[in-house]
Amino acid sequence: MTDDLLERYAELAVRVGANVQPGQLVEVGGLVEHAALVREVARAAYRAGARYVEASYGDAHARRARIEHAPDDTLSLTPPWMLTRERTLAREHGAAIGISGDPEPELLADLPGDRVGKTRMVELADESMKNVNERAINWTGIAFPTEGWARAVFGSPDLQRLWDAVAYTVRLDEDDPVAAWRQHVERLERRVEALNALGLDVLRFRGGGSDLTVGLFPSSVWCGARAVTSWGLEYVPNMPTEEVFTTPDARRTEGVVRATRPLALYGNVVRGLELRFEGGRIVDVSAESGADVVRGQLATDERAAFLGEVALVDGTSRVGRTGVTFFNTLFDENAACHIAYGAAYAEAVEGEPPAEGFNVSSVHTDLMIGGPEVEVDAVTRDGREVPLLRQDVWQLHD
Amino acid sequence: MTDDLLERYAELAVRVGANVQPGQLVEVGGLVEHAALVREVARAAYRAGARYVEASYGDAHARRARIEHAPDDTLSLTPPWMLTRERTLAREHGAAIGISGDPEPELLADLPGDRVGKTRMVELADESMKNVNERAINWTGIAFPTEGWARAVFGSPDLQRLWDAVAYTVRLDEDDPVAAWRQHVERLERRVEALNALGLDVLRFRGGGSDLTVGLFPSSVWCGARAVTSWGLEYVPNMPTEEVFTTPDARRTEGVVRATRPLALYGNVVRGLELRFEGGRIVDVSAESGADVVRGQLATDERAAFLGEVALVDGTSRVGRTGVTFFNTLFDENAACHIAYGAAYAEAVEGEPPAEGFNVSSVHTDLMIGGPEVEVDAVTRDGREVPLLRQDVWQLHD
Repeated sequence: MTDDLLERYAELAVRVGANVQPGQLVEVGGLVEHAALVREVARAAYRAGARYVEASYGDAHARRARIEHAPDDTLSLTPPWMLTRERTLAREHGAAIGISGDPEPELLADLPGDRVGKTRMVELADESMKNVNERAINWTGIAFPTEGWARAVFGSPDLQRLWDAVAYTVRLDEDDPVAAWRQHVERLERRVEALNALGLDVLRFRGGGSDLTVGLFPSSVWCGARAVTSWGLEYVPNMPTEEVFTTPDARRTEGVVRATRPLALYGNVVRGLELRFEGGRIVDVSAESGADVVRGQLATDERAAFLGEVALVDGTSRVGRTGVTFFNTLFDENAACHIAYGAAYAEAVEGEPPAEGFNVSSVHTDLMIGGPEVEVDAVTRDGREVPLLRQDVWQLHD
Repeated sequence: MTDDLLERYAELAVRVGANVQPGQLVEVGGLVEHAALVREVARAAYRAGARYVEASYGDAHARRARIEHAPDDTLSLTPPWMLTRERTLAREHGAAIGISGDPEPELLADLPGDRVGKTRMVELADESMKNVNERAINWTGIAFPTEGWARAVFGSPDLQRLWDAVAYTVRLDEDDPVAAWRQHVERLERRVEALNALGLDVLRFRGGGSDLTVGLFPSSVWCGARAVTSWGLEYVPNMPTEEVFTTPDARRTEGVVRATRPLALYGNVVRGLELRFEGGRIVDVSAESGADVVRGQLATDERAAFLGEVALVDGTSRVGRTGVTFFNTLFDENAACHIAYGAAYAEAVEGEPPAEGFNVSSVHTDLMIGGPEVEVDAVTRDGREVPLLRQDVWQLHD
């Protein structure tokens, strides 16, 4: 990794990702280990005309100490100043850039899973989801490779290899990454239009231990990389992004699904996760490791155990093509079809969110369920069966 | 430096410094470069029973970008969430531990001094000073040695040498640092009692280029290391601390004073600072370097150019005995007599703060003016002259 790469990544996040505008208030969030990129993004945001940039740091070790020592009834509390920050960003049409890339992906693996799962700032998560659904801020998520993360991915702290993989997935290997992103966004938009034209009612995922049906609303619409704020500013919420997604009817998920990739969740790696749905609700959680963290998380919120998103990704995905499991949802969810339990996205339904079945929750956890062994089909509202993915190959014309 | 030393330092800051109590809300503030100590303090605070510990990080490079790029009329703005944090701590009887130790003491030296001096969160400084004066929180300041700081001090990144010096000043070299602190605090209390018994009216600093008189209030009282919150909790606001201090009548400072040590201020080192006071106000600022930073700072606030504190330190000071200039006010102010321009402390006057002459400001900058070459005398309210320091030796019986 060179300073130049870091600067170009920051510029891309600011100009294409969040699309920071002159006069905006900007939050750049990351772990203390991400300081080098936080600083580059702060510089790029000021260069783009930001009025004020908040470098907002999290500390996984302070969080660990909280889980170890804090009283049980305080674990889900949000400090009021964090709500003020989230609300100020929304009120002032602010921007946010979030940096992930866990330097110690199993830092919390030795702690009691139920306490780990319960330690979530629920009010903050609600407020943040409200900002997303009201399209109140322009935001994006990016990632900062660290040695610890590289070790989790490759078994050795090969930082350069991880940077190469990340740079490829975010198109920083291109001569003109901005133009490459424009083309990529357009390509996903064509896929969105094709899916929306079909009028889908149900999706089916079959193979590799999964047999899952996911029912949609008549008003479900597919969305791609292009997002627009309530005041009309375009932005790209994740870099990388390879998915098209929609909001399911949370009452209509049935069957069994087996994760096709490990899930990094709250300082734990959940391996071999299997979920069983009945009447839309997750009624059974099993895993080779980390099942108690998922159960602890689901217990924090009445509606966490219902689906909020279903997304399709095919084998052309640059993330998938790296062949790397990143142990980071920003990447792994863009290598494979996925579902998310927890909150649904308002932008992925037409008009007002339906009163019933539109899932509202402080949780939103993506779970990879696609791969070459999983066939994906749809049934249209007028009863036609439509194959969508075979062997990870997209079956519709883009 | 060993992990053990870091843990003992954190314990001392939590148990003796801030004196964190079970159920308290605690803020631990530092730069991202201080993460190792922030984490130890967070752990120690949770062990002491804290309900929630906020690891609150600043970033000098994001601040630098703000100074370089942000619109001129935004430089002194405080983001509203920082006020929420400060007010929540006060309302909930919270605690705060601040970590200093600049890894790049001249990071901002190449930027325009007036913009550097103006870039201060004025509302936050006001709120924070209000919390101090209303004795609303139990707090302390400590420091974290870094290679960059060691380089500024010794000319080479001799981290171990800096740790040794810091450990000595905060009595971590003692077998029982807690007992050593108890004795030290008592010794400063006896000095406070002796000064208060004298009924002083004026202090004079003469020698080494200074000839300064500082007038006190009839209600000025001397204070030492022991502080008490409004609800009766004892704490020690700085570690190290070697001073006794009081609040002057801001209208009654006259003459010239020459700094005896460099002053690290906003990423600059101010060397050879000289101030001239007339009718209590600083009317002339000169320096070998950094004068424009001081002038920029004074210009942010109507009352910044008046005195808010005067403090006495003698040659028994452990900080002074190290012979080290730390380029860090927490240390350097405890090696020598000092004054501070800007806000006065309410705890250092008896009863309500006087309506006139009690200085209220968002600035509080300490400036070292003592040393073996400076004679310090006082005049009592009944007209007696009392020598206080000669050749850095305390002239009163402790």
